[in-house]
Amino acid sequence: MTDANVHFQPLGRKTSPEKGRTLLELARDSGVAIESICGSAGKCGKCKVIIRSGAANLSPPNRSETGLLGDKPVLAGTRLACQATIVSEGDVVVEVPEESRRGHHRLLAAGEERATKLKPAMTKTVIELPPATLADVRADDDRFLEVLRKGARTSSMMSPGAHRTLPGALRDGSWSVTATLFRGKEVVRVDPGDTTGELYGVAVDIGTTKVVAYLIDLTSGKVLATESMPNPQIPFGEDVMSRITFTTKTPDGNERLQKVILDGLNSLISKLSSTSGVPQENILEVMVVGNTAMHHLFFGIPAKHLASAPYAPAVRTSLVYDAGQMGVDIYPFGKVSSLPNVAGFVGADAIADLVSSGLYRDTHIGMMIDIGTNTEIIAGNKDRLVSCSSASGPAFEGAHIKFGMRASTGAIERVWIDPASRDVRIQTVEDARPRGICGSGIVDAIAEMLRSGILDPSGRITDDKGDRRVRKGSNGVREYVLVWGKDTETGEDITVAQHDIEEIQLAKAAIFTGVSTLMRKLGVKCKDLERVYAAGAFGTYVDASSAITIGMYPDIPVTRIRFVGNAAGSGARMALKSTHVRDLAEKLSKKVEYVELAAQKDFQSEFAKAMFLPHRDLGRFPSVKTGKG
Amino acid sequence: MTDANVHFQPLGRKTSPEKGRTLLELARDSGVAIESICGSAGKCGKCKVIIRSGAANLSPPNRSETGLLGDKPVLAGTRLACQATIVSEGDVVVEVPEESRRGHHRLLAAGEERATKLKPAMTKTVIELPPATLADVRADDDRFLEVLRKGARTSSMMSPGAHRTLPGALRDGSWSVTATLFRGKEVVRVDPGDTTGELYGVAVDIGTTKVVAYLIDLTSGKVLATESMPNPQIPFGEDVMSRITFTTKTPDGNERLQKVILDGLNSLISKLSSTSGVPQENILEVMVVGNTAMHHLFFGIPAKHLASAPYAPAVRTSLVYDAGQMGVDIYPFGKVSSLPNVAGFVGADAIADLVSSGLYRDTHIGMMIDIGTNTEIIAGNKDRLVSCSSASGPAFEGAHIKFGMRASTGAIERVWIDPASRDVRIQTVEDARPRGICGSGIVDAIAEMLRSGILDPSGRITDDKGDRRVRKGSNGVREYVLVWGKDTETGEDITVAQHDIEEIQLAKAAIFTGVSTLMRKLGVKCKDLERVYAAGAFGTYVDASSAITIGMYPDIPVTRIRFVGNAAGSGARMALKSTHVRDLAEKLSKKVEYVELAAQKDFQSEFAKAMFLPHRDLGRFPSVKTGKG
Repeated sequence: MTDANVHFQPLGRKTSPEKGRTLLELARDSGVAIESICGSAGKCGKCKVIIRSGAANLSPPNRSETGLLGDKPVLAGTRLACQATIVSEGDVVVEVPEESRRGHHRLLAAGEERATKLKPAMTKTVIELPPATLADVRADDDRFLEVLRKGARTSSMMSPGAHRTLPGALRDGSWSVTATLFRGKEVVRVDPGDTTGELYGVAVDIGTTKVVAYLIDLTSGKVLATESMPNPQIPFGEDVMSRITFTTKTPDGNERLQKVILDGLNSLISKLSSTSGVPQENILEVMVVGNTAMHHLFFGIPAKHLASAPYAPAVRTSLVYDAGQMGVDIYPFGKVSSLPNVAGFVGADAIADLVSSGLYRDTHIGMMIDIGTNTEIIAGNKDRLVSCSSASGPAFEGAHIKFGMRASTGAIERVWIDPASRDVRIQTVEDARPRGICGSGIVDAIAEMLRSGILDPSGRITDDKGDRRVRKGSNGVREYVLVWGKDTETGEDITVAQHDIEEIQLAKAAIFTGVSTLMRKLGVKCKDLERVYAAGAFGTYVDASSAITIGMYPDIPVTRIRFVGNAAGSGARMALKSTHVRDLAEKLSKKVEYVELAAQKDFQSEFAKAMFLPHRDLGRFPSVKTGKG
Repeated sequence: MTDANVHFQPLGRKTSPEKGRTLLELARDSGVAIESICGSAGKCGKCKVIIRSGAANLSPPNRSETGLLGDKPVLAGTRLACQATIVSEGDVVVEVPEESRRGHHRLLAAGEERATKLKPAMTKTVIELPPATLADVRADDDRFLEVLRKGARTSSMMSPGAHRTLPGALRDGSWSVTATLFRGKEVVRVDPGDTTGELYGVAVDIGTTKVVAYLIDLTSGKVLATESMPNPQIPFGEDVMSRITFTTKTPDGNERLQKVILDGLNSLISKLSSTSGVPQENILEVMVVGNTAMHHLFFGIPAKHLASAPYAPAVRTSLVYDAGQMGVDIYPFGKVSSLPNVAGFVGADAIADLVSSGLYRDTHIGMMIDIGTNTEIIAGNKDRLVSCSSASGPAFEGAHIKFGMRASTGAIERVWIDPASRDVRIQTVEDARPRGICGSGIVDAIAEMLRSGILDPSGRITDDKGDRRVRKGSNGVREYVLVWGKDTETGEDITVAQHDIEEIQLAKAAIFTGVSTLMRKLGVKCKDLERVYAAGAFGTYVDASSAITIGMYPDIPVTRIRFVGNAAGSGARMALKSTHVRDLAEKLSKKVEYVELAAQKDFQSEFAKAMFLPHRDLGRFPSVKTGKG
């Protein structure tokens, strides 16, 4: 029938679907990429879809589906796209959940942004002045300010930039000029003629590991260019603590760390400028977010006290510094601003996460988890917000993992192990020959090893089934061969070592201890969590089911997990675009309560229990079924 | 009689004065230096004093006195100290007018300063904070601002300097710190413990020719050190106009001129610091005055429009820039401030003159004349003030004068010519052998040459008396030998050339045209001028009678002339010490009306008439008697 359709929500449509074909195939035909790793064997469960209507036109659910998904979800319409086939003519409406969309994770990493009404801090206004004559020899500034203030503005002041540009602009523009004001109060620049169409800013997320900068057209809100680089402070210390230690042990250590990040940012700005053709001189503001240590080091504020109890930050309040004074290569009398911090280890990046997620205005209870070298967690709703920080370390970025690597070409990012045959299937970035394992790959691997019984709940690699992939490594400690050398780029076997598993256990235990502590503070249980915002590149790439399986995320239905990508970057962009967002952020940073995890009396025992896979207290992970369970 | 006294007001007293001795001798004995150049011959008239009581104990006035001083003044008590002798026992009270005090001029050059109540812009306050604990992990800035704001202060903000110094100060000072605030609003620095005793600032007068800087202890108001240097911009142009021309003809000319003056100021600050032992880091503010061009060039504001009609300044308003941003080597988050300008050629230095003189609050009509390469004149009283600027050039500083030199060792600073014998007497700086003539010397010389009939009113050197000092120079033009080679340091005759006289005529005509234009604007005559404030080093050194004789100052009794020395420097110091003075200056700069001399329809003819000695219209100088009159 020519008028029958399969609608994939959102995105695609397949007209005249052929009988006998699977939803997975039809989706691919219509340009909708659905995850699948088991070769359509109905075994990996990644290709979950929800049938919104026309279920009768599909094959009935088979055993693979009920086994993997459970009877109840299947009754409610959940199917495996690789198993459900077209059996009769008629429309079918298929919802592809976020979780099942291939590539969606990667796209999201740029950060999802809530619509923001443009209200940038820098504004431009055209004004016409009476020319100076021998009969009216008032000073340029008096002449200018009189007209500017008439325009219903408050008592605007002029910055050195305005003093320098005013006299030339007045004469070059025949007494018609464009004034640029910061927050409606400070004139920072005057240009001849009408330049209101040119208004640019840069939003920057300074992560401990990665720095991302976005060039924004502040007249349209559009991102004109994006550039990123590894944080150039990495050579001085991989994590926040070791960088702070560097500042305490090295004379002018703070200055040196400031210099490298400033140089780094300047190189990003230079690239943004050449990519977009926007002169650096026309970039008027930089909005910076980062964790508190990155924030302090960037702004030249001593960071050393962050490293010792009670870990109080030097500065909470939102900052506005002069770009020239800071040494940031934009218009020298432009501004470098920041969002506010909350605590020593909950910084402006967490506030950016909060702002961009919308958690602060939800009525139901939600949680924001931004996984990085340091993981910030904020939980609550419009009434109350609590926060904490976990030193999760860089394992999820591939550090300290034997075959760990960044999520670049050839990185194993998805792993599926057939529990029966112990066959391993992998998916790599750009489908290249595997070179190593990235963060989402190692979490998948551990989750699959646990489900298949290769790991016991303590994280130990077992060999009770004589699996030849389980072997002793060169150091005599067990390891698991994920890919045999014949199939890898280097010819070397890619393995998951016992030590790798311990690293991930430490990291996920740190995160879950934060999660559980905040839930206890709020007096809520997992079932009460209506929404978990998973932020950060890793938090977005990682398979949510696997993250729950290893006990990193709380045990909630994966549909409640919302991937918000680089939410810190999104928040920075929103703040750059709108002073309302900044004002909101300032309010929120005062409202968010900070919980010092290490000061909680049961912190040690909570952490120890969270080292288990998924947890020592299995009652907290009722949905997780492990091979050794 | 042992209990008889001669009191010299102010300053000295001579007990048991011997009969037959002159007041001049008694004054010297009691440490009061009175001017005299004719060797007590009763001829030069410099040693004028006023007898306030005990006139009967003195010799009666002789002919020299009535001849030189006039009958009426002598009747009113004016005497020549070299002629009046003690004739009987009894007290005598003698007033030594400013004009007659030797060395007073030089002392005054530092600038007389009206008492200023200390209210510096930078203030320090000690505050005690509750320490940060695990139970109170508020950010340092929140903790600090809460206590600071409780102290009845308005919403204080923190500058980058405060952010950088706060965390260390809190811990080093055991939570007791000293906050430095700018104008009570912006925290610029936080020091551990109590540092309220250390508060320093620098006041700077940037003259076209000379830069003077004063280091002030802002807790006591005392000047701790003074340093000066020639303006390092001189190689780029001797006067304001040629420097502005340099900026228009040289790419980055404005930047280059800014750099040299900044470097110059920094070297003065460095010297002030080493002389006084006050670390540069503890200097918190620099208050700058200068003419509008010097002001603009210093602050990096384009100066080129000052050179073309209508000569509007780019900036009138008082400035406050960050020291670090400016590149001024004090505490980097300290401030560099300025007083406001009035017009393109009436700058912050004129406002400083006005503030320090007190003219703005007088009820009678007065005039302030600050002679420099550019001469600023302000006239009026508390009700109305008018101002103008004259391009008087650097002749008074010795430039373009054949034997011209600065007022340094060996400079002829006083000249007296006996009208009868044509004998010449000179006085030099430090009484050294003469090397050249400084500004006050050349004015004296011309005045004396005029009085003795060596010059005619057009300024031509005449030889009708066969004076052998009048001769043809090597260029065939007449010159007058002031000192024969046998008496000079170099062995060369020191002469006043015809060209030198023309230079001085041009300069004094420029000044007097301004003086007369402002008097006309106010509708007043010379007799209405109750007070003339003579400012600037030259204006203070110069003999007031000679200045009147050549027609530079208006013809008023010399007792109405008040020497205020480097009034611009004094005003800068006052402004540094008190924000009240700054607020007053800001008001005054708006109140002072500016008169563009070149735009006055009779400017050319007024100028031409003022070229004569003293003036084409002798009715304007009734007191001046010339040899050719």
